[in-house]
Amino acid sequence: MCQLLGMNCNTPTDIIFSFEGFRLRGGLTDHHADGFGIGFFEGKGVRLFHDDKPSAHSPVADLIRAYQIKSENVVAHIRKATQGQTSLANTHPFMREIWGEYWLFAHNGHLKNFYPEAGEYYRPVGNTDSERAFCYILEQLRQRFRHKPDEETLFETIASLTHEIRNHGLFNFVVSNGEFMMAHASTLLHYIVRKAPFGEAKLLDDDVAIDFSAVTTPNDKVAVIATLPLTVNEHWTQLAENELVMFRQGDIIRRDIPSSPRYLSIEEGLAIARAAGVSV
Amino acid sequence: MCQLLGMNCNTPTDIIFSFEGFRLRGGLTDHHADGFGIGFFEGKGVRLFHDDKPSAHSPVADLIRAYQIKSENVVAHIRKATQGQTSLANTHPFMREIWGEYWLFAHNGHLKNFYPEAGEYYRPVGNTDSERAFCYILEQLRQRFRHKPDEETLFETIASLTHEIRNHGLFNFVVSNGEFMMAHASTLLHYIVRKAPFGEAKLLDDDVAIDFSAVTTPNDKVAVIATLPLTVNEHWTQLAENELVMFRQGDIIRRDIPSSPRYLSIEEGLAIARAAGVSV
Repeated sequence: MCQLLGMNCNTPTDIIFSFEGFRLRGGLTDHHADGFGIGFFEGKGVRLFHDDKPSAHSPVADLIRAYQIKSENVVAHIRKATQGQTSLANTHPFMREIWGEYWLFAHNGHLKNFYPEAGEYYRPVGNTDSERAFCYILEQLRQRFRHKPDEETLFETIASLTHEIRNHGLFNFVVSNGEFMMAHASTLLHYIVRKAPFGEAKLLDDDVAIDFSAVTTPNDKVAVIATLPLTVNEHWTQLAENELVMFRQGDIIRRDIPSSPRYLSIEEGLAIARAAGVSV
Repeated sequence: MCQLLGMNCNTPTDIIFSFEGFRLRGGLTDHHADGFGIGFFEGKGVRLFHDDKPSAHSPVADLIRAYQIKSENVVAHIRKATQGQTSLANTHPFMREIWGEYWLFAHNGHLKNFYPEAGEYYRPVGNTDSERAFCYILEQLRQRFRHKPDEETLFETIASLTHEIRNHGLFNFVVSNGEFMMAHASTLLHYIVRKAPFGEAKLLDDDVAIDFSAVTTPNDKVAVIATLPLTVNEHWTQLAENELVMFRQGDIIRRDIPSSPRYLSIEEGLAIARAAGVSV
């Protein structure tokens, strides 16, 4: 499957440590060899990097490591092409403007028979189920709300659109407008909120450790969302199947969770993805 | 003033040589020290790089040099902030999707009292006159055409919108959908079409030369558009005041030019920009 990575914080934070573990999955420790993308919000603006080279060997990924961009909201994706050709137009995260804000969206999964009619406001450029889903969500939001609705309405509308879309298959996604971040799990998605007292973390995919207490202030709150936990010595929380959460400033502020939540083991999650034709 | 750079070719071409001269204007040989942006079309997809560091010293610019991205359509901009704060959201080129295509737009100039009402389809994210103009053009196109019109209609509609917008001030711009490129001059804009027989070119801003015959095939056709000529030993053609041209595959295919065209000297062009409050 493709892998997702999101970060939502209350202070601009660099994602290098998490990104290092994540990007090694793109060609070294894992088989995600069809390119990657990462978008950093900076105020209302976005720095967006797409590459069709595997992330473990990408000069763009090297730049990101060297540059240490600080951001409150980051959306990243490593792609193993299952739907659509491998091309830049099919590389996540996708970006559109709605209500005068840029939104970034990355998806991991596979939607069957999901071909909504061409939108009035949003149309896909590439040919992935993922971009179709993003455009459909935005189209429905824009058709229903000429101006941005309040946060509760926004969350509930996206939750209801997510219920509808996930009927078509696996729909793990991360979406952000630079202020909030929403994450939905069909199979595997984990998060951690790092806050004081900060400790040391060790990457799962590489022999690298960081002492967060040396690079943070006591008020920092950093939520990291990833398909699979990125560190070995921290407690990551798994999202339930069909759970949708909304983060702001590193906190979960809204949650839509089935009444009898089910948590897949990593083996089950990977098996379901395989059965759905999502390469793992 | 800010500087514009565009490239439109019939074969994927790297823009490193032109970009090198151009980017040196961002902090070394010129005073464009408020960041830069460059977008490369690759098929229908776009690689977009924005940076708020001066381009002469930017690691992103170093990456672009190292990476040698080949593209048939490139839009770049070095920014000296005159309108709007210096921020990523105000960094050109701006990107939006229309009719299932990404469009890139970069502007150099200053539009007075240009505040169109909020669009149904497109709204600015930042607060520049440039992004307002781009959104206005797209809004008008989309309101008039639910589907992409033929090329002649498209050109004529953009020409007519350009006539309207330039009443507000200086409106040098470059816009591309990855297939065509349109360029409009209010003051200074130059282009060159390089084709066989290819020769040597020397950068104006740096002690660098390239022998194009060594890196091209006889069928290549490469149009480069820039605020000011980038090379000293080639013949650049100046656009007239209020001239709009459309390139495809390195050729000019449509042109909208005043019946009595007027060509500003560089001194006149710079003086007009200064008088309009555009920093030079």
